[in-house]
Amino acid sequence: MNYRMIRNILGWLLLFECGFMLVPAVTAIVYGESQLWYFLLSMLLCGGIGGLFVWKKPKDPVLYAREGFVIVALSWIVLSLFGALPFFLSGCIPNYVDALFETVSGFTTTGASILTAVEPLPKCILMWRSFTHWVGGMGVLVFVMAFVPLSGGQNMHIMKAESPGPSVSKLVPRVRTTALILYSIYLTLTFIMFILLLCGGMSVFEALTTAFGTAGTGGFGVLNDSMASYSPYIQIVVTVFMLLFSVNFSCYYLILLGRFKDAFNTEFRRFVYIVGIVILVITLNVRGMFDTLGEALRHVAFTVASLISTTGFATADFNLWPELSRALLVLIMFIGACAGSTGGGLKISRLLILLRGAANELGNLAHPRRVKRVTIDGHPVEPEVVRSVNVYMMWYVLIFVGSMILISFDDHDLITNFTAVTATINNIGPGLNLVGPTGNFAFFSIPSKLVLIFDMLAGRLELFPMLVLFAPGTWRK
Amino acid sequence: MNYRMIRNILGWLLLFECGFMLVPAVTAIVYGESQLWYFLLSMLLCGGIGGLFVWKKPKDPVLYAREGFVIVALSWIVLSLFGALPFFLSGCIPNYVDALFETVSGFTTTGASILTAVEPLPKCILMWRSFTHWVGGMGVLVFVMAFVPLSGGQNMHIMKAESPGPSVSKLVPRVRTTALILYSIYLTLTFIMFILLLCGGMSVFEALTTAFGTAGTGGFGVLNDSMASYSPYIQIVVTVFMLLFSVNFSCYYLILLGRFKDAFNTEFRRFVYIVGIVILVITLNVRGMFDTLGEALRHVAFTVASLISTTGFATADFNLWPELSRALLVLIMFIGACAGSTGGGLKISRLLILLRGAANELGNLAHPRRVKRVTIDGHPVEPEVVRSVNVYMMWYVLIFVGSMILISFDDHDLITNFTAVTATINNIGPGLNLVGPTGNFAFFSIPSKLVLIFDMLAGRLELFPMLVLFAPGTWRK
Repeated sequence: MNYRMIRNILGWLLLFECGFMLVPAVTAIVYGESQLWYFLLSMLLCGGIGGLFVWKKPKDPVLYAREGFVIVALSWIVLSLFGALPFFLSGCIPNYVDALFETVSGFTTTGASILTAVEPLPKCILMWRSFTHWVGGMGVLVFVMAFVPLSGGQNMHIMKAESPGPSVSKLVPRVRTTALILYSIYLTLTFIMFILLLCGGMSVFEALTTAFGTAGTGGFGVLNDSMASYSPYIQIVVTVFMLLFSVNFSCYYLILLGRFKDAFNTEFRRFVYIVGIVILVITLNVRGMFDTLGEALRHVAFTVASLISTTGFATADFNLWPELSRALLVLIMFIGACAGSTGGGLKISRLLILLRGAANELGNLAHPRRVKRVTIDGHPVEPEVVRSVNVYMMWYVLIFVGSMILISFDDHDLITNFTAVTATINNIGPGLNLVGPTGNFAFFSIPSKLVLIFDMLAGRLELFPMLVLFAPGTWRK
Repeated sequence: MNYRMIRNILGWLLLFECGFMLVPAVTAIVYGESQLWYFLLSMLLCGGIGGLFVWKKPKDPVLYAREGFVIVALSWIVLSLFGALPFFLSGCIPNYVDALFETVSGFTTTGASILTAVEPLPKCILMWRSFTHWVGGMGVLVFVMAFVPLSGGQNMHIMKAESPGPSVSKLVPRVRTTALILYSIYLTLTFIMFILLLCGGMSVFEALTTAFGTAGTGGFGVLNDSMASYSPYIQIVVTVFMLLFSVNFSCYYLILLGRFKDAFNTEFRRFVYIVGIVILVITLNVRGMFDTLGEALRHVAFTVASLISTTGFATADFNLWPELSRALLVLIMFIGACAGSTGGGLKISRLLILLRGAANELGNLAHPRRVKRVTIDGHPVEPEVVRSVNVYMMWYVLIFVGSMILISFDDHDLITNFTAVTATINNIGPGLNLVGPTGNFAFFSIPSKLVLIFDMLAGRLELFPMLVLFAPGTWRK
């Protein structure tokens, strides 16, 4: 294990986190809020420790796959531990585990909150909360890599471990350039959304926090009722952008290059079909609960976009919808967004490989001598990718079941426990019953909150980094 | 596809079913019940059609893997279609789909019932209901194979497709002899249990039906309150035998041969640990709900044995237990019994391969150059078995989720839907909420009942036969 290199990268990360905190610090200055000092103190800690860590450049920059996983897992944990400081130091969230829960929920773009009311909080705190979504959305280390040459050309292990989806595609040969392109698209889309929200009459503060929460597919809002009281225009803008941020960002790059056929690939098309069909079925199912069909369609489209993108904003209390709608909503919570987007869940392309693999193997059972490979968009999928997708599913189920059992000690109902794990491991935010769109996660015990913190991190990092970090074999020589 | 061979085997099966119906027919004679005529009519139909089917011996007895799956799937469907006749013709279950549900539930040893009260039913009908459990427990085709040489020495494909567990072990080189040994053990254990129940003061009728229901790990009872009103002695006998019938039958054969070390293998030990730990935790969790610790232990042991063996008898309404207990009970419903037993669920050995495979692959991620194989009891597991276990899990999840969505159209609560699918695909019987131990499956719509019928058959036959039967590729030349 290359400990010096790990320390060096964690150092850079803390220096960047110090920089990220400028955003809430400026907010505090603009609104004249006294919490500024807590942000400055947190920045001092991040900057000081980060500076110490990067002081001595390690001689050996070589990183192996194992270290890639460990670095990614540790980075997100350290980022969250320090990111929780402003909430805790300012007393806005008096319990440190709660503050950590909120921060992990922010960086992992989950949006599950332990706060019962957000409106009384200072604006700088709300800004930090929403900004963590934006930072976490595209991956923090990918961001750092875009600016700092982390390890001698071997960033691929880190990018692989942090990027969502079963396989990572480099847009251009150099990892750093890929990271820069992705972040430029991310920034541009966020900016367009910000302008559209301003046009809808939002304040700069509201438009910024909403854009950050949507771009990262996070879901923290600045109003207690999430998005219910905003105008239909704003709700429609948010719906459209939640879907846009659920699409693989390389699609946008391919569109810019004019390669439309490559952009609208199988994953993209499946995503569009699923969203369309689910919106249609649920709208028919709930139309009696709304005054007009148009209103029903608007709320259903918002809810479906919010849950499949794993954002978690809400305009309607879908917890009260009929069972068919609830079951379909839980289903899309698991499906999730496209690979290479900011959304969570299992990802369309992973499920595609899984389904085609399952169909393939069934054929092999009936015709044992046939050899057929899984293909997507005409290209054969590497057997290792198919295998890793299978392994992913197994660990997903294991972590899911383990978490369910552990949080059952709190004696809340089965649906609450089931959807609390669903909402955290898929980085969505709200679930059903007690953790429904009008509820929150405050009532869980400290041990249960720690389990859900693990689930949020495991879900965002796609399991393997967190598993490798805790596997005993990793630390053996 | 060797259609003539398929017809021939289905014919033999119907002739055997005609023979099976002698048991309720004799019961009807003993109790002087008029339903005798409906059984004779059903026997005439089975015997007549069966006789026609076996009349002409097929020239080519060769069967391939594909035909093995198709024969097994069709056999169980035909068996159930004809087995439902006495319920339907006698008017005891006026709707044919309901009668089919009850019969499939019987043969697949599920024990889920659409009857709201069983006590008013004639004894011969109750006997047939319980006897289907005993017939289905060890596999019908395995039974037929023990007596009739079905295909020129190629019974292995059929035995493989019908036997529970990830891989089938022949005790002796000849498949027919293996089938005979297994059925002798089954018969002996059932007989011992029958005698022990008689000693507890049960009538011959009660002792027989209870022994059949336990041996097949089915769960149909003859009293409305299942097992709650029986004496502690009877409850303890049933508890012990539910566990005995959950053990791989080859363990008993190995014990008879004196090979104790081979008998108490990893799967056996894991089964004992799981049962012990779960009983302990739940007893501590519910001890306040019972007068004495001993009483709590008796009810918990009964419930755990009933659900992990996937029998489904009940002495207490576990639906009212705390959430931790409920979550653990749902967990053991999925775990299920050992491979090669009469129990259902995912099976201990399948989960063992899955877990070891998952741990192995995690190690491979961290150390990409290492090559390590999954071993159980010191023997390496064939890579094809590991792969087929993975494929099994995928299809299991797919069928599970698909069934959940389909039965959600009925608009019952999520827990009812979830545990209804859990209880049928794992061949248990009762679930939670509306399908809890005091409920039944009568309230589901006809389409939902058909979905659950499919789940029971798919679960009992371990998915692949039913999937291959419905896969379009199977029927292509």
